Amino acid sequence: MSDYLERIESPADVRRLSLPELEGLAAQARRALVDSTLVTGGHLGPNLGFVEATIALHHVFDLSQDKLVFDVSHQCYTHKMLTGRKRAYLDAAHYGEFTGFTNPDESAYDLFRAGHTSQAVSLACGLAKARDLLGQHHNVIAVLGDGSLSGGEAFEGLDNAVELGSNLIVVFNDNGMSIAPNSGGVYRNLAKLRQTKGTCEDNFFRTLGLDYRYVDEGNDVGALVAAFLEVKDLDHPVVVHIHTVKGKGFAWAEQHPEAAHSIPPAFDPARAGVEPADAPKTYQQITRDYLRRKMAADKSVVVVNAGAPSGVGLTPEFREWCGDQFVDTGITEQHATAFSAGLARGGAKPVFMVMATFAQRAFDQFVQELGLNRSPATVLVFGAGFYDIDATHAGTLDIVMTSNIPGITCLAPATEQEYLDMLDWSIDQRERPVVIRVPEKVLSGGEGAFDRERPGGWHMERLGSCIAFLSLGSTVELARRAACLLEEREGISATLVEALNYSSFDEPLLDSLLRDHSLVVTLEAGILCGGFGEKVARYYGKTHMRVSCYGGKKEFLDRVPTDEFFKIYHFTPEDIVADIEALLRKR
Amino acid sequence: MSDYLERIESPADVRRLSLPELEGLAAQARRALVDSTLVTGGHLGPNLGFVEATIALHHVFDLSQDKLVFDVSHQCYTHKMLTGRKRAYLDAAHYGEFTGFTNPDESAYDLFRAGHTSQAVSLACGLAKARDLLGQHHNVIAVLGDGSLSGGEAFEGLDNAVELGSNLIVVFNDNGMSIAPNSGGVYRNLAKLRQTKGTCEDNFFRTLGLDYRYVDEGNDVGALVAAFLEVKDLDHPVVVHIHTVKGKGFAWAEQHPEAAHSIPPAFDPARAGVEPADAPKTYQQITRDYLRRKMAADKSVVVVNAGAPSGVGLTPEFREWCGDQFVDTGITEQHATAFSAGLARGGAKPVFMVMATFAQRAFDQFVQELGLNRSPATVLVFGAGFYDIDATHAGTLDIVMTSNIPGITCLAPATEQEYLDMLDWSIDQRERPVVIRVPEKVLSGGEGAFDRERPGGWHMERLGSCIAFLSLGSTVELARRAACLLEEREGISATLVEALNYSSFDEPLLDSLLRDHSLVVTLEAGILCGGFGEKVARYYGKTHMRVSCYGGKKEFLDRVPTDEFFKIYHFTPEDIVADIEALLRKR
Repeated sequence: MSDYLERIESPADVRRLSLPELEGLAAQARRALVDSTLVTGGHLGPNLGFVEATIALHHVFDLSQDKLVFDVSHQCYTHKMLTGRKRAYLDAAHYGEFTGFTNPDESAYDLFRAGHTSQAVSLACGLAKARDLLGQHHNVIAVLGDGSLSGGEAFEGLDNAVELGSNLIVVFNDNGMSIAPNSGGVYRNLAKLRQTKGTCEDNFFRTLGLDYRYVDEGNDVGALVAAFLEVKDLDHPVVVHIHTVKGKGFAWAEQHPEAAHSIPPAFDPARAGVEPADAPKTYQQITRDYLRRKMAADKSVVVVNAGAPSGVGLTPEFREWCGDQFVDTGITEQHATAFSAGLARGGAKPVFMVMATFAQRAFDQFVQELGLNRSPATVLVFGAGFYDIDATHAGTLDIVMTSNIPGITCLAPATEQEYLDMLDWSIDQRERPVVIRVPEKVLSGGEGAFDRERPGGWHMERLGSCIAFLSLGSTVELARRAACLLEEREGISATLVEALNYSSFDEPLLDSLLRDHSLVVTLEAGILCGGFGEKVARYYGKTHMRVSCYGGKKEFLDRVPTDEFFKIYHFTPEDIVADIEALLRKR
Repeated sequence: MSDYLERIESPADVRRLSLPELEGLAAQARRALVDSTLVTGGHLGPNLGFVEATIALHHVFDLSQDKLVFDVSHQCYTHKMLTGRKRAYLDAAHYGEFTGFTNPDESAYDLFRAGHTSQAVSLACGLAKARDLLGQHHNVIAVLGDGSLSGGEAFEGLDNAVELGSNLIVVFNDNGMSIAPNSGGVYRNLAKLRQTKGTCEDNFFRTLGLDYRYVDEGNDVGALVAAFLEVKDLDHPVVVHIHTVKGKGFAWAEQHPEAAHSIPPAFDPARAGVEPADAPKTYQQITRDYLRRKMAADKSVVVVNAGAPSGVGLTPEFREWCGDQFVDTGITEQHATAFSAGLARGGAKPVFMVMATFAQRAFDQFVQELGLNRSPATVLVFGAGFYDIDATHAGTLDIVMTSNIPGITCLAPATEQEYLDMLDWSIDQRERPVVIRVPEKVLSGGEGAFDRERPGGWHMERLGSCIAFLSLGSTVELARRAACLLEEREGISATLVEALNYSSFDEPLLDSLLRDHSLVVTLEAGILCGGFGEKVARYYGKTHMRVSCYGGKKEFLDRVPTDEFFKIYHFTPEDIVADIEALLRKR
């Protein structure tokens, strides 16, 4: 077998290949994809399904002129291989060089950084309109996954595309599966379209006024090339609905589409789903265990998730166990939030479990449906804070987003016990929406710290003098270690306060510190701008109290190893104590 | 003619009426609606079209048990008349007692405060699911306007409704018009459905798996009653598509659906659209005048609006003039933002004009598509700050939302000249997304204050000592007056700084104040939490500088007269100076 990949230096090389060569390239790309992703981890299933389509797109279109936009970009690995980045998939030494998403910093063939869903058509509409205004004539192609279609933004884009009335090709990649199984009425129509090979009378895309083509063999390069040639240079928007197989060509992935959607590094399919006996306890697990008890005892408790169950620990088994006390709304954070508000108003007890980065998509619903309507829903925000992750998935804006909205109570547990106390209190209370910022690391202790009668209260862990540490959530550990070091080095016995609630101040506590303290140090795992520490700085602004805030800069952290940015942010006991010493000396 | 309205004390009374009586009630409600709205102002057109449907709903359903949710609630006036609030429409003395939107604080028949669009189906899904979990058996009805259908959240809700699989009645109120003319492919399908009286093969709702009924005579009480009786107690979701006439029964409103959508108080249709000769200049007008020049000279400048042109001054005449340099995306802030990012990447120069309150719907797109992707789009945020307005439409969270996102440059002009300088700079630069917070009041001056070479720079208006005022946007006037009063009363010549950029600090300027100043006073027309002043407080937190922040509390202001909350927030020169004097005395 020839080494086709070796001969691909740029997309121009793909355009020159014959059909058998394209097929050879696909086989080789698929092998590279499996081999490398098993080592590095990543979005295995979605990428395996889109190998042939990517090659066909690069063959038919001249992507140095034509413009290709990926949605969510869970399916961009083959594209990366063809656009100068194949070494990341062929050579273990280069595995870590590129991100798993499209990224203009890596290649001119990546037009946008994409990581959240449902925006490709909107971006492509903008590119198409710009082209028309500037009198240019290239093709604009958007790749939209079927999972992304549940997100309202995709509908908005498709709906508006018709009005633009010029060339726009939407490649709709339908593998019959989101991250988890698809949920929503439109998927019944897609199933019917697949069954009838695109010929049934009722057709979601056509009702929006879009032209439509169907390709049943979405993993057949020849069929795809033919379809793309047919729509190339069309003068109006068209949807090319391609039926692909998630995990195509790798038996385990085909059989386990949810598990294979995204796999961890050094992955062994044989051991998928098997928890190592020594695995540390996680909040995902703690939440499931708690909810099993709570939901069994109270049928009005209902778990809501917006199409991304894995990050928040909603395993297939647990979802199955929940029965009608679980609703997957599809990738629809806006709807899921309003739906939770409706549940709450209707007398049920919703627990909306969402990743911090995706919660961003429902800011207005948090404002209107939760805050303004005082809806007693519980929102569990996972993945908030500093993680070594792609910038598209950063979870550092949740404090900004939730804690500044009137009417929402935001709680930050530091320990498992505090978390469980807060969760239990929140589910049963009927007065207000509550956001709980779920920590990453499970700590013990905290018994009695959270007072159900006073959910705005903070916990005084130790009353000292001169300097007080106000820690949010699991930064309590850092505060303790800094306080220890400070005592060691300066003989100062600092005060330790856990700020359990970051939507309001424990004013009596803050005021009491004014007597014996001259410096308050705040700690939060989020960006400082608009965050917790700034509020404390404002609170003390008119007093003698100095306030020093530790947290993140207003920047997009992009796969920066945790230790590295902890160093940059002075998020270590040594740096904090050194800073304090410098301050003390200055005065 | 009998006085039907007089006999309606609660919805129970509507259930007892005969068809002729219901028709009499409709005629009377319509008259009351026209008479009162011409005086009070409000959403005239949408309400006129929904008189009969409201009466039919109250007749067929028992809304003390069944649950009715209004979308955006532009069409809830008749509902208010029937639920104990008719005095607001019948007696000028009571006109001001109720808000123009549904509001649970007013009536148990209002389930949610609603003012933004597209959420009714989601809320209703929640109510329906809660009902099912709790073993209850009432009907759940959502009223969705055709304008709201362009918003993706409505799609998310409709799509998910099918999965819930139990009683849910969506009354789809189709008057063929949003605030402005509808935009989007789905409206072509609606037109076809209206033409074929709901019988055409391709049917948007049916493709989503929804049951469907069509009522062509959407302003005929009898037809509506029959249709609602037919779907009452159904065991699955159904859409009742009713064809109504916006402005029905008031000739001027029928002929001018956009102008009649929402009218100001003391409205005279004969003078609609006529600008009084002595009307003060507005930023809407200034923006149009500038854009006419700019767009004529540069065909790549394109104005984007998300279905709400009136608040931002995009008059029908101006939109017409813009031609293909204007795009109305429908009520789709998410798409409009991503679309703008696409335009920018494609080489065009988008100017997205949006109301602060609606911009909230695109937080994640501001983060991902604008900030992370560094898309050189210009966003003009109108209606930001303190207005005497319904809480649903408050524009006080924009600073929180935009200024804490990495990568977005946020500018706050105080004067017309500053605004024009910023706007012109922003449109032509190609490096970053820029948000301009458009002030309410047009002030003169400010020549040379904004430095195109240094867009992060602030403007030192006057260098004094001891105390410095840092004002954001048009609070500069308040700062000047406070400074004057302070000089008068305490002989202190304070420093005046216009903080033209609120996404970053002018650090040299802030540092220079440390020498001769001991107090910085910040002023912003927005909530303090997560806002501008807090950032300044943090900046100075470790220094001797005291910081006193003026702005709004974290609360939903609900139709509070401006003077009143200015008083509460100490947003007057007298209060500010009194506060400063108290501080000076304390030390």
